[in-house]
Amino acid sequence: MRPMDVERLKALLEAVRAGTVDTANALSELRDLPFRDLGFATVDHHRQLRTGVPEVIFGEPKTAEQIVAIAAELARTGQNVLITRLDPAKAAAVQAELPGLKIAAAARTATLEQRPIPARPCAPIAVVTAGTADVPVAEEAAETLRMIGIGVSRVYDVGVAGIHRLLDRRATLEASSGVIVVAGMEGALPSVVGGLTGRPVIGVPTSIGYGAHLGGIAPMLTMLSSCAAGLTVVNIDNGFGAAMAMGRILPLPE
Amino acid sequence: MRPMDVERLKALLEAVRAGTVDTANALSELRDLPFRDLGFATVDHHRQLRTGVPEVIFGEPKTAEQIVAIAAELARTGQNVLITRLDPAKAAAVQAELPGLKIAAAARTATLEQRPIPARPCAPIAVVTAGTADVPVAEEAAETLRMIGIGVSRVYDVGVAGIHRLLDRRATLEASSGVIVVAGMEGALPSVVGGLTGRPVIGVPTSIGYGAHLGGIAPMLTMLSSCAAGLTVVNIDNGFGAAMAMGRILPLPE
Amino acid sequence: MRPMDVERLKALLEAVRAGTVDTANALSELRDLPFRDLGFATVDHHRQLRTGVPEVIFGEPKTAEQIVAIAAELARTGQNVLITRLDPAKAAAVQAELPGLKIAAAARTATLEQRPIPARPCAPIAVVTAGTADVPVAEEAAETLRMIGIGVSRVYDVGVAGIHRLLDRRATLEASSGVIVVAGMEGALPSVVGGLTGRPVIGVPTSIGYGAHLGGIAPMLTMLSSCAAGLTVVNIDNGFGAAMAMGRILPLPE
Amino acid sequence: MRPMDVERLKALLEAVRAGTVDTANALSELRDLPFRDLGFATVDHHRQLRTGVPEVIFGEPKTAEQIVAIAAELARTGQNVLITRLDPAKAAAVQAELPGLKIAAAARTATLEQRPIPARPCAPIAVVTAGTADVPVAEEAAETLRMIGIGVSRVYDVGVAGIHRLLDRRATLEASSGVIVVAGMEGALPSVVGGLTGRPVIGVPTSIGYGAHLGGIAPMLTMLSSCAAGLTVVNIDNGFGAAMAMGRILPLPE
Amino acid sequence: MRPMDVERLKALLEAVRAGTVDTANALSELRDLPFRDLGFATVDHHRQLRTGVPEVIFGEPKTAEQIVAIAAELARTGQNVLITRLDPAKAAAVQAELPGLKIAAAARTATLEQRPIPARPCAPIAVVTAGTADVPVAEEAAETLRMIGIGVSRVYDVGVAGIHRLLDRRATLEASSGVIVVAGMEGALPSVVGGLTGRPVIGVPTSIGYGAHLGGIAPMLTMLSSCAAGLTVVNIDNGFGAAMAMGRILPLPE
Amino acid sequence: MRPMDVERLKALLEAVRAGTVDTANALSELRDLPFRDLGFATVDHHRQLRTGVPEVIFGEPKTAEQIVAIAAELARTGQNVLITRLDPAKAAAVQAELPGLKIAAAARTATLEQRPIPARPCAPIAVVTAGTADVPVAEEAAETLRMIGIGVSRVYDVGVAGIHRLLDRRATLEASSGVIVVAGMEGALPSVVGGLTGRPVIGVPTSIGYGAHLGGIAPMLTMLSSCAAGLTVVNIDNGFGAAMAMGRILPLPE
Amino acid sequence: MRPMDVERLKALLEAVRAGTVDTANALSELRDLPFRDLGFATVDHHRQLRTGVPEVIFGEPKTAEQIVAIAAELARTGQNVLITRLDPAKAAAVQAELPGLKIAAAARTATLEQRPIPARPCAPIAVVTAGTADVPVAEEAAETLRMIGIGVSRVYDVGVAGIHRLLDRRATLEASSGVIVVAGMEGALPSVVGGLTGRPVIGVPTSIGYGAHLGGIAPMLTMLSSCAAGLTVVNIDNGFGAAMAMGRILPLPE
Amino acid sequence: MRPMDVERLKALLEAVRAGTVDTANALSELRDLPFRDLGFATVDHHRQLRTGVPEVIFGEPKTAEQIVAIAAELARTGQNVLITRLDPAKAAAVQAELPGLKIAAAARTATLEQRPIPARPCAPIAVVTAGTADVPVAEEAAETLRMIGIGVSRVYDVGVAGIHRLLDRRATLEASSGVIVVAGMEGALPSVVGGLTGRPVIGVPTSIGYGAHLGGIAPMLTMLSSCAAGLTVVNIDNGFGAAMAMGRILPLPE
Repeated sequence: MRPMDVERLKALLEAVRAGTVDTANALSELRDLPFRDLGFATVDHHRQLRTGVPEVIFGEPKTAEQIVAIAAELARTGQNVLITRLDPAKAAAVQAELPGLKIAAAARTATLEQRPIPARPCAPIAVVTAGTADVPVAEEAAETLRMIGIGVSRVYDVGVAGIHRLLDRRATLEASSGVIVVAGMEGALPSVVGGLTGRPVIGVPTSIGYGAHLGGIAPMLTMLSSCAAGLTVVNIDNGFGAAMAMGRILPLPE
Repeated sequence: MRPMDVERLKALLEAVRAGTVDTANALSELRDLPFRDLGFATVDHHRQLRTGVPEVIFGEPKTAEQIVAIAAELARTGQNVLITRLDPAKAAAVQAELPGLKIAAAARTATLEQRPIPARPCAPIAVVTAGTADVPVAEEAAETLRMIGIGVSRVYDVGVAGIHRLLDRRATLEASSGVIVVAGMEGALPSVVGGLTGRPVIGVPTSIGYGAHLGGIAPMLTMLSSCAAGLTVVNIDNGFGAAMAMGRILPLPE
Repeated sequence: MRPMDVERLKALLEAVRAGTVDTANALSELRDLPFRDLGFATVDHHRQLRTGVPEVIFGEPKTAEQIVAIAAELARTGQNVLITRLDPAKAAAVQAELPGLKIAAAARTATLEQRPIPARPCAPIAVVTAGTADVPVAEEAAETLRMIGIGVSRVYDVGVAGIHRLLDRRATLEASSGVIVVAGMEGALPSVVGGLTGRPVIGVPTSIGYGAHLGGIAPMLTMLSSCAAGLTVVNIDNGFGAAMAMGRILPLPE
Repeated sequence: MRPMDVERLKALLEAVRAGTVDTANALSELRDLPFRDLGFATVDHHRQLRTGVPEVIFGEPKTAEQIVAIAAELARTGQNVLITRLDPAKAAAVQAELPGLKIAAAARTATLEQRPIPARPCAPIAVVTAGTADVPVAEEAAETLRMIGIGVSRVYDVGVAGIHRLLDRRATLEASSGVIVVAGMEGALPSVVGGLTGRPVIGVPTSIGYGAHLGGIAPMLTMLSSCAAGLTVVNIDNGFGAAMAMGRILPLPE
Repeated sequence: MRPMDVERLKALLEAVRAGTVDTANALSELRDLPFRDLGFATVDHHRQLRTGVPEVIFGEPKTAEQIVAIAAELARTGQNVLITRLDPAKAAAVQAELPGLKIAAAARTATLEQRPIPARPCAPIAVVTAGTADVPVAEEAAETLRMIGIGVSRVYDVGVAGIHRLLDRRATLEASSGVIVVAGMEGALPSVVGGLTGRPVIGVPTSIGYGAHLGGIAPMLTMLSSCAAGLTVVNIDNGFGAAMAMGRILPLPE
Repeated sequence: MRPMDVERLKALLEAVRAGTVDTANALSELRDLPFRDLGFATVDHHRQLRTGVPEVIFGEPKTAEQIVAIAAELARTGQNVLITRLDPAKAAAVQAELPGLKIAAAARTATLEQRPIPARPCAPIAVVTAGTADVPVAEEAAETLRMIGIGVSRVYDVGVAGIHRLLDRRATLEASSGVIVVAGMEGALPSVVGGLTGRPVIGVPTSIGYGAHLGGIAPMLTMLSSCAAGLTVVNIDNGFGAAMAMGRILPLPE
Repeated sequence: MRPMDVERLKALLEAVRAGTVDTANALSELRDLPFRDLGFATVDHHRQLRTGVPEVIFGEPKTAEQIVAIAAELARTGQNVLITRLDPAKAAAVQAELPGLKIAAAARTATLEQRPIPARPCAPIAVVTAGTADVPVAEEAAETLRMIGIGVSRVYDVGVAGIHRLLDRRATLEASSGVIVVAGMEGALPSVVGGLTGRPVIGVPTSIGYGAHLGGIAPMLTMLSSCAAGLTVVNIDNGFGAAMAMGRILPLPE
Repeated sequence: MRPMDVERLKALLEAVRAGTVDTANALSELRDLPFRDLGFATVDHHRQLRTGVPEVIFGEPKTAEQIVAIAAELARTGQNVLITRLDPAKAAAVQAELPGLKIAAAARTATLEQRPIPARPCAPIAVVTAGTADVPVAEEAAETLRMIGIGVSRVYDVGVAGIHRLLDRRATLEASSGVIVVAGMEGALPSVVGGLTGRPVIGVPTSIGYGAHLGGIAPMLTMLSSCAAGLTVVNIDNGFGAAMAMGRILPLPE
């Protein structure tokens, strides 16, 4: 709640108490108070402080200048900051202005850690990829998980055309709190993983492929049509979203 | 593991012990053992018995005769059975042969409950719909949740064009273990719900709509493109899948 | 605002006045009041009563029984009711239960007029079609306009392949408050109309056509890509929506 | 009407008057007069002069040279000129040749104001965006509104995943003559706005997003499928078109 | 030109002649004359009478009653009538009311021949199909050609998977005035025909096929992407349109 | 070659021999001989007789009458006949006229076996399905294989969500001459099979699924985008085509 | 026919005449003669020489080096050459090697005229565009028409949003042998032109537009769905194809 | 099998033999052995060594650095290496680090041949293209075939618009072990080839084309919808995949 609004509300209640405003008028005025006065932002804010969820900047459609401006403002609040989908040129430009920024090149992300990230009380998330080309999306998920206090087990390059590679890593899947499966091409891996484990499984289709792959539409449709019951899906290349979904599922820090 | 396989493996080990088969030959023979000998099916089976997850029959592409045959076979094992996407004509035909079957008309499902369903130790799932026409998909989710021991809070007809209806039900969302949001037309509701609560949110696009709605493709794309971080999505009209995904997230019965 | 909520709020304010609740506690309690307490529904209700906008039932995905149930409940409040996308079989079934219902077969609508519809202070809307097969959608628009107090000038079967038919009716377009242009096939008519008049023009693509027409997608894309500046578009076959958009544009009854 | 044509027509009438051409022959000759002789262009021209609507150049598919040539010709007539979808490189090149040109970088537009723009007698239009990345499209709308004499209230970054931000700005929406809602990603915002206000609402889907967003197709389908009655839609990123549609709706300068 | 309009124009000219209206006023009044006064319809009418082109009714979206009404009205003028896309049930219903109607079942058309059809002075059109299932579309073309006075050479079932069947019929292609190639499935036949002959070639994709064929979209895209220079294409299943295009190309009756 | 053509050619050569036609004229005449005279059809015919490939009728777009007429004509030549995509009603109608016809209901095919089918000298083809609903397409493949002399090993219901079911059947895959993998839903099975075996693998997407499955487009795109090298694909539901492709690969009868 | 083949055939006939080869063996050998021996290429060649149709090089997917190599080889035969879809950089590179090449920048074509182009005995083709941005495609058509001896009347920038501009040019349309209508955006212009004239009309959709325009798919679908009977369509931006189609329609040089 | 695993298994069997582990415990331990212990990789490895199939690197989504790293590691094992979809810049960068690498520019591939490639005992594969622009994809197939020991007959530029070019090359098709048909534009060539020969035919759609060609989707749909029985298809531009499919079909080296 903005101080201005709190003051206005307090003043109204004091006036009621003092008898200078009667109940009917107070009732009428309360009805018109802007909604944020009711504390949405505050609640959000409290949750964020407690859980360590960082402020997030979606870097792709913004210029380096815009990113610097937003990040600098967030930095002033002492928050942690996560910037996603940041290409190398912008990353360098932003870092030049914000020296504290750490760049995770493989994940195309950058982070500003100003306060410790409290650990979630749970086993790590297994982040699985079908191929090596899917790794950037997996790393975006991993960096996001790290920034919300969740551990990561990487299980990379275990696509379905060599199923033994995946079977070999079953123990890792079973020891996880959940599995994020990142797959381009035909996007079949989440179905197989969903059949191997009863853990929460989130599929992330990627734009790796060509032709009939339609920039990721093929694996996206594949995952949505999966015969593995209880598989859910996020947008193409959206490693960040899958990680945030895991953040919703897993218990908060104590 | 099939008894036959167990016996074969035991016999091999006994022969090694007795010295009638040497290590090299035993090694070679072991390499050829079929994979199920390693106990996959058994593990699956144990998990199902313990958690009460029913056997599921996807009714849509099957004839009533096929459904009866499969359900009867499953019934003989004492398992609970859930049949989904069952139209009224087939439902009547199947029930005529399997009198113990209970039909949930609104959900287009039928169930055979032969053993008690152990309750999951968690708050109910809020099942939310944008409109009344989305209710059948929501009821499919609700019936599935019931069959896996999870309670349901129904929050129906709270679409975004009258946002106060949803805001009015925020307490129910916050009191849930997770939210399944079922929406046809523009499919915008999961984004709004995802912004209102930090609980796990799964969007289910429905085929309710016409024209640019493309039989559910529009709300499906909408939900996948959502700006609400951590929202996941299942296939169009797939209430069953959303419920099963919640089943993966929530703790098992004790 | 529900009486319960009003009472609760009044009691709180009285307690503040009486000094039995202090400002800080009142502030805290106010923050949790449900949103509808702020009077949304009431405002909506007032607007509807004043403007004569009917309650609307989207008939397509509902059974006759469901439509009867909803319409009967609305009828009890004395409101006018408009049912859209009602096929003949359902229309007959609904009318059998609600004898006061008037069916507009060409528009696939039905209406229940329980109170007079106040006329909007404006010229009529010109409803234009490219072909005779587009007339049902045009009539849905016309019936909706009638139910919100707006007059209609029908300009039917003036498609672009015989451009003189449209040019011949220019005076009607110019004498209107706005133009709803309903066109299937190639959907080119709104562009031409948009170039002929400076009035508000809303294009309604229809599902009349075949092959490359893709069930209305082709004229929908056509209208959205129009080179006529200031043309807006609604969903395929959505005559109702176009009429309601005109309802937003035109002045309310005095 | 071209002078040549006017002269030809006058000469004919004079000949009739003088009796050197009889009625039948005059009738026959009149039938063949080109259509523009009937004054279309003149009418258009008059309307433009009176309302201050500028001449518009769609900059995207044109070279800087072509834009300069067209703009220079228009400039000679004393008209105001609006150039849209002008990238920075072209903008600089055009400005070098036409120093009077003012560039609105955020809107990717340029304008030449040679005569005062008469103000429309109405409240401003609220231009609303879901995210900050949608701002360029919103600014294109705002610049266009400005050039046709309509005021603007900016309501930026109020996307549905944080619904309180929008609710907080309801008063601005209600105080407007209409609302242009610019949204990429899932494009859900116009539905919510349409439910909050009875004002004219035009949705502008944007190309901001990725993957399932399909370059703006997803929010475009979303808006067309909206359950908010009376919402209309323009092409992806077409802020100009939405503004021009408002120009058709609002009263002309007195 | 309607008599009323002619009279009005004559009166104006007489007034000019008599000196009771001056040139300037006459000029002004002429500018407002409706466009049809200029004789469009008349010209169209004359052309139709001379060439024998029938009036056409697109039967698909109309009820039998509507078709009867329109056909009966056209019949009264003595015109020939062609009804296309007429399913058997409607055909029977229409024929019951209009006994003179002749039904061409294979073409799904019906015709009313009230005046002789003058023959076009040209060689016949070769109508070619890839398979036997494409014949109804080919017959629609053939019936249309017959009704506009053009002869037909049928070359059926010569698809590209047995190329010798087509090569065997080259003489027929060369002896034609043009070739209409009707093909579903992969739609490759027009390309081959276009390479074999220099005659005008029009491709008609059909809805015969399944799966990746997408209801005719696949052969439609195939034909539009053809490497055979100078091939043109009409809509899926549009045998009527291809025939009418040939009607535009070929010389009129003398 | 038609007897007529052979005679004509012989006569020409005899005339050359007799000296009644000179070389230049013979050369000229030869150039105009129709192509089939060169023996295409004959070659095709010989191959068919030797290999036992039946004549095939694609039943879907044909009426029962048309199928009977074609089948009866083929039957007169003593050939074997295979009818595909034959629904039960048509199958019964056709069988009533052609009592020798055997119907394979599960495959939606019918066959007329008039001569023994020579066996191909090779191991059987493994026909694999992901689910039970894919069986009709698999049976169409199996019936086609049988009619061209190739044995079949059925491996049904081994979809990727329970990967152990497939691993359990590896020996059958390895013992085959090739594998036809029939899969709807996400269509992931061919990728996994392609990784397990070096045999020829052909994927057949099916129309079993809903929503994002797009009537089989999703598994079709999946299979085409597969990361399993050397996998080829046929049209949706095209079990017949996959079998015929195997017929091209495998050695002919001796 | 290649000399080698002619010699071979002559030798065979001589041997028959001389009695050294008998009829049966000659028959057998003739059956195996390659098809080109029958004179296809020769016929094509003759036609080209007589009509002046140039050799055409599709420049887009080729490197400048490849274009130079092909053009140089064609140039040696004395043929005229037309290169299409040639971007400025390639055009300059090719011209540097082939100085006789003339570049038509607006058409993105280049030509080598080595022999006079005989004029076709017909009126010019009207090439019409909706906007100025469509001109490059129109110029490609115009250049192609010029190279095959057909005159051109340009009617540019007469889009449907200002229909009087087109009506004003009706005389030009009527005086043509046919009309090529080039239109991007909504692609409505060919429908209107098709209604105004009975001449052959070919629509060319262009890639000018954005958003719902889908790179030209929207106007392509529009034109294929046109209600103007007898309109045919070519691929997006395919001005060359439309001109070649006119070349098929119009009479050859005498 | 990794040595570690073999040792572990041997030790277990020795312990059984020695009586220090009993059967039940051994059984339990065996069940947990990782799957690769069963020798998948070894089998794959053996097959690769025997057949000469190279290791393959999909170059497109990888940086030059990544390609060098992977190729260098593979090179150390003495394997042959094939890199596909390698653009010229990357190719040069990779070659600079791996001087033994041979670049096939036309095929966009590079190879490292460290051991002789054993020849497959079969006739060559005919690699056919529709146009010259399809050659790069054909060369990718040819290079892949070469690397797996299969000969190639090139039949380029024989598209269906000049069918005699293909007919002229029938002998080459018949003399092959199979045919890979590479075609962009309308993609009709595989259908024609499939009708001319009974050999295995694999269609490869290419991205050569524009507009309705949709980047290769049009020829891909065409080939999948082919009426030539037994034609199979791979992804757009996937020459590598077609070659690998031939590798599955043809006999291994002796």
